[in-house]
Parts: sequence; structure tokens; C-alpha cells
Amino acid sequence: MEILKERIRREGVNLGNGILKVDGFINHQVDPTLMLAVGGALAARFAHLQPNKVFTAEISGIAPALTTALALGVPVVYARKSKPITMHPNAIVETAPSHTKGSDVRLTVSPEFLGPGDRVLVIDDFLATGKTIEALARLVRGAGATLVGIGTVIEKSFENGRADLAPWGVPVESLAIISSMDHGKIVIED
Amino acid sequence: MEILKERIRREGVNLGNGILKVDGFINHQVDPTLMLAVGGALAARFAHLQPNKVFTAEISGIAPALTTALALGVPVVYARKSKPITMHPNAIVETAPSHTKGSDVRLTVSPEFLGPGDRVLVIDDFLATGKTIEALARLVRGAGATLVGIGTVIEKSFENGRADLAPWGVPVESLAIISSMDHGKIVIED
Repeated sequence: MEILKERIRREGVNLGNGILKVDGFINHQVDPTLMLAVGGALAARFAHLQPNKVFTAEISGIAPALTTALALGVPVVYARKSKPITMHPNAIVETAPSHTKGSDVRLTVSPEFLGPGDRVLVIDDFLATGKTIEALARLVRGAGATLVGIGTVIEKSFENGRADLAPWGVPVESLAIISSMDHGKIVIED
Repeated sequence: MEILKERIRREGVNLGNGILKVDGFINHQVDPTLMLAVGGALAARFAHLQPNKVFTAEISGIAPALTTALALGVPVVYARKSKPITMHPNAIVETAPSHTKGSDVRLTVSPEFLGPGDRVLVIDDFLATGKTIEALARLVRGAGATLVGIGTVIEKSFENGRADLAPWGVPVESLAIISSMDHGKIVIED
């Protein structure tokens, strides 16, 4: 997706250790027009699989998942990291090791909003190690729903998450793939 | 906003103690089409104040803030509850007592994305006690920016948050106002 790649080239900052700062347009300040285009592009790649639900994890997955769901005309569900008091008592829980916090993150979803018969497209802002996305996939399976695809805005392919997601047997699509952040550079695949 | 009120009447559940369950369309599962309309309605109420930035708090403020920003054609910034490693070192921090957790929540924003010259519209999903919104208003002030308005999707007017926000001297608008949840009812103002 050229406008996204161009934005990463212009505003993305390599902070070292594989950490990409894109908080001016993706995950602190968000450019809604870019995000609408991102959602449209992700929806276009998965529409043929006829997902009836988009599923993501709070926090920074919410914006791209919402715009993808808007383009597909289906609801979006975001897994919660803390269980709100309004959550259904029989919530489904999975844990994922946190990349940045060093501890496990619990992801919770209500069986009211994900269940048998649902065809689920998982969307997240980043595909890095794939651990969060894998926890989302396990939640889909735990709910008895069918995972149909995985879409992300930015993939850091040098963290090899794609290989770990391969056993799920669904298409994995990313709008911008960064193959290296060595030596202070940000190498974006064509 | 009639379609929102109708949705609350049809799907909102009074869980007692003033707790409203609307997680089927607002804050766990989100209806993107409704949320786009919500954003359009909020934008229409504040466009004349010429905000150049929408500001909210993660998590459940993100969806309505994003669609409001989309309708206004301006960026949206969400205050973070945990400070990401990509955050600017001189971040601005405020705390708000959490309604549901019994402890304080820290809200953080980068001075890169909120500063002097910004005209800021604060958006959140709920106006209840107003404590989170007040912390957002203090962040706006702390950044040297100008608060121009406060908009929320659902106001629980019996929690009196609006009175506490009055000293900020800006318009406060909510798309649906619930005046009572006594005796298991959900009373929505006309």
C-alpha cells in the first residue's frame, strides 16, 4: 500500500532493537483518513473469504480493525486486556507473552460476540513475533468460530511471526512489510 | 441521536448500581456503521468551534473519537494508560480515579502531538462522574493547548459529571442522556 509505505518512509523512526516509532499516525496520534484507506485495503484483500466479523486486541488494533470492519460492513470485536464489569461471566481467556512488558497479557472475549458460525478476520496494527495474533487465533478457536484470515498494517518480517502463524492455514496479509531495521535503516519491501 | 437511543433501548442492559451494559455495540463489540454516524453527529455539534485535533483516552474512547476525527478531517490522539517504549521522554501525565478499579489511572500524552496552537475537542464513550474527561482536559491545559469542547456518546446525567466539567467553560454535548437507572429501568431523555 503505497501511501502507507510513503508515510513510514517520511515519519517512521528507527529507535533501535527493532523498535519502530510510528506513533504520529498509527498508535498514539492516528491519521483517520490514512486509517480509512488502510481499512479499505485490508477489506479488499479478505472480502472474498466472506468474514462476518473482524477481531482484534485492544489497544492499537482498534483503529485499523474498525475501519476494516466498516469497509466490510460487519461488526468488530476487540479482546479486552482487563475484564470489564459488564463482561459476560463465561468469558474466553488466552494469554500472550508481552513483547514490551516482559509479562503475560491476558486477552478476554465474551462468547456473546464470538461463537460457532462466525467467520473471523483477525486484524492488528503490527505483525512482529505474532504472539498476540496467535492468542487471538486461539480465542477464535476457543469460541468455536472459524478463522478465515489475518491482516496487519505493518509487518516486521525479520521477527518471523509469519512462520509461526503458518500452521493456522489461513492467508496472512500485511500492507507494509519491513524486512530489516539494521544499522538504523528502515527497509520496506516493494 | 435517535438511532443511538433506539439501540440503547433495544440492546442496553441495566446491570444495577448504575452500570449500563452496551458492550454489544459500543465497547467490546462495535457496530462500525453506528459508530460512523456517532462520529458524524458529534462532529456536527462542534465543527463551528474549529477544532484541529480530537483527543480521547484509550480504550473505549478510541472508536467514537476516530470517527469524529474522520468527519472533522483532523487527527485524533489517544492518551495512553501505560507509557509505550516509543513515547517521547517528556510526556505529559495526569491521573484520574478509576470508577471500576478503585485505583488511579495514569493518562499520558506526548508533547509531539498536543501543544500550543492546538484547538482540542475531547471525545469519550461515556460521561459519568467526568473524572477521566477532567484528566483529559488537564492534559490539554498541561500541553498548552486550548480545550474547545467535550463530546460523549452516552451521558449518565444522574452521576453529575456535567456539573464538575462546567468550570472548564466549554460546551458539553452527549448524543444520548440517561437520566435514571433506578428500579432496573433505563430512562433516556428526549
